[in-house]
Amino acid sequence: MAAVHPFVPQDLILPDYVPIMLPQLTILGIYGAASVLVITFVWILSGMFPKISKADKVLMCWWVFTGFTHMFLEGYFVFTPEFYKQKSPTYLAEVWKEYSKGDSRYVGRDSAVIAVEGITAVLEGPACILAAYAIATRKSYSHLLQIAISIGQLYGTAVYFITSYLEGDNFAASPYYYYFYYIVMNSFWVWIPSLIVIRSWKKICAAVRLQDQKKTKSR
Amino acid sequence: MAAVHPFVPQDLILPDYVPIMLPQLTILGIYGAASVLVITFVWILSGMFPKISKADKVLMCWWVFTGFTHMFLEGYFVFTPEFYKQKSPTYLAEVWKEYSKGDSRYVGRDSAVIAVEGITAVLEGPACILAAYAIATRKSYSHLLQIAISIGQLYGTAVYFITSYLEGDNFAASPYYYYFYYIVMNSFWVWIPSLIVIRSWKKICAAVRLQDQKKTKSR
Repeated sequence: MAAVHPFVPQDLILPDYVPIMLPQLTILGIYGAASVLVITFVWILSGMFPKISKADKVLMCWWVFTGFTHMFLEGYFVFTPEFYKQKSPTYLAEVWKEYSKGDSRYVGRDSAVIAVEGITAVLEGPACILAAYAIATRKSYSHLLQIAISIGQLYGTAVYFITSYLEGDNFAASPYYYYFYYIVMNSFWVWIPSLIVIRSWKKICAAVRLQDQKKTKSR
Repeated sequence: MAAVHPFVPQDLILPDYVPIMLPQLTILGIYGAASVLVITFVWILSGMFPKISKADKVLMCWWVFTGFTHMFLEGYFVFTPEFYKQKSPTYLAEVWKEYSKGDSRYVGRDSAVIAVEGITAVLEGPACILAAYAIATRKSYSHLLQIAISIGQLYGTAVYFITSYLEGDNFAASPYYYYFYYIVMNSFWVWIPSLIVIRSWKKICAAVRLQDQKKTKSR
């Protein structure tokens, strides 16, 4: 029997699968437009806080963007196991049917993917919004929280890639989807968290070093 | 055909499985004795560094103990896929055959388990030794590194438990092994890293707050 879905491996069994209804450009366009809207809104909002550097404004945009992605997009995936059976066109279901062309473990409900996405949606999503708030209000835990979330994102992405590799790395419908969705899109959650860890790590070490010097002087 | 191994689920296929040769008490006893030896050695060594608090000495013992466990025990598991076929008695192979009674995903080479153990053995193991060194030599990144590793350990343990839950939580040979190996033993990597995160988080926030105050004063 031929596969009745566009995903690889073709022997993946998806009873009651409803084909994708929206075109790729619409699915990506809505995500892109929503992201631009959110980022613009946060950029304007961040300008209202006193003593916010340009780097901090950019970081606030990143944290709200990635936080919303974690909570809404990934949260929907985690808590809607039967998204691929949706009969009326639901945008978030379409997103995951489309993304599954790059990694069919989503539509196949791979447990490692659900575990990582669950931690990301439930814990890291809200923590990202808190990070944006902490930057705006100059909390003492701001850099620490940014490091903590970024390490979580890096750990999650590592588990995501390693499990796929161990299982044969054959979950993409074509090289196009493999490189565009699986490699390029996920790479943002590798290099951006890495840069944030390096930046915030340096800032915290500088603060601790200063306090140590002060202690030594006061002796 | 009946299962030729003591693991659950019984339909797990393990060609050329060689039964456990060492008694449980010997396997646990060697791990316990080696741990006591390492901890005693680190405790004595740590006393040679100036200005080391009791809490720091305890933490150094923990970091070397958990680092060695990650690198040697878990490292052996990651890089010896056929450990359950070992014909001559090999202590580390016996450890993982014994532990698999609490979680057969080890002997079954579950990809989520290998991914988490791989990150733990290769990245976190050496980082733990660095953390002990950082405490001893009072590096400015000491608390930060302890938080980073602890978050990694907590994330790994979360993926470990969640994937098992999602796959039916039926990998233990009996309730005894489930609670003793799977729950109690792993719980150390939940509550100890949690306590370390809380402690180091407070220390860093205090240092950052002090630097912020200083900045405000000097204006």
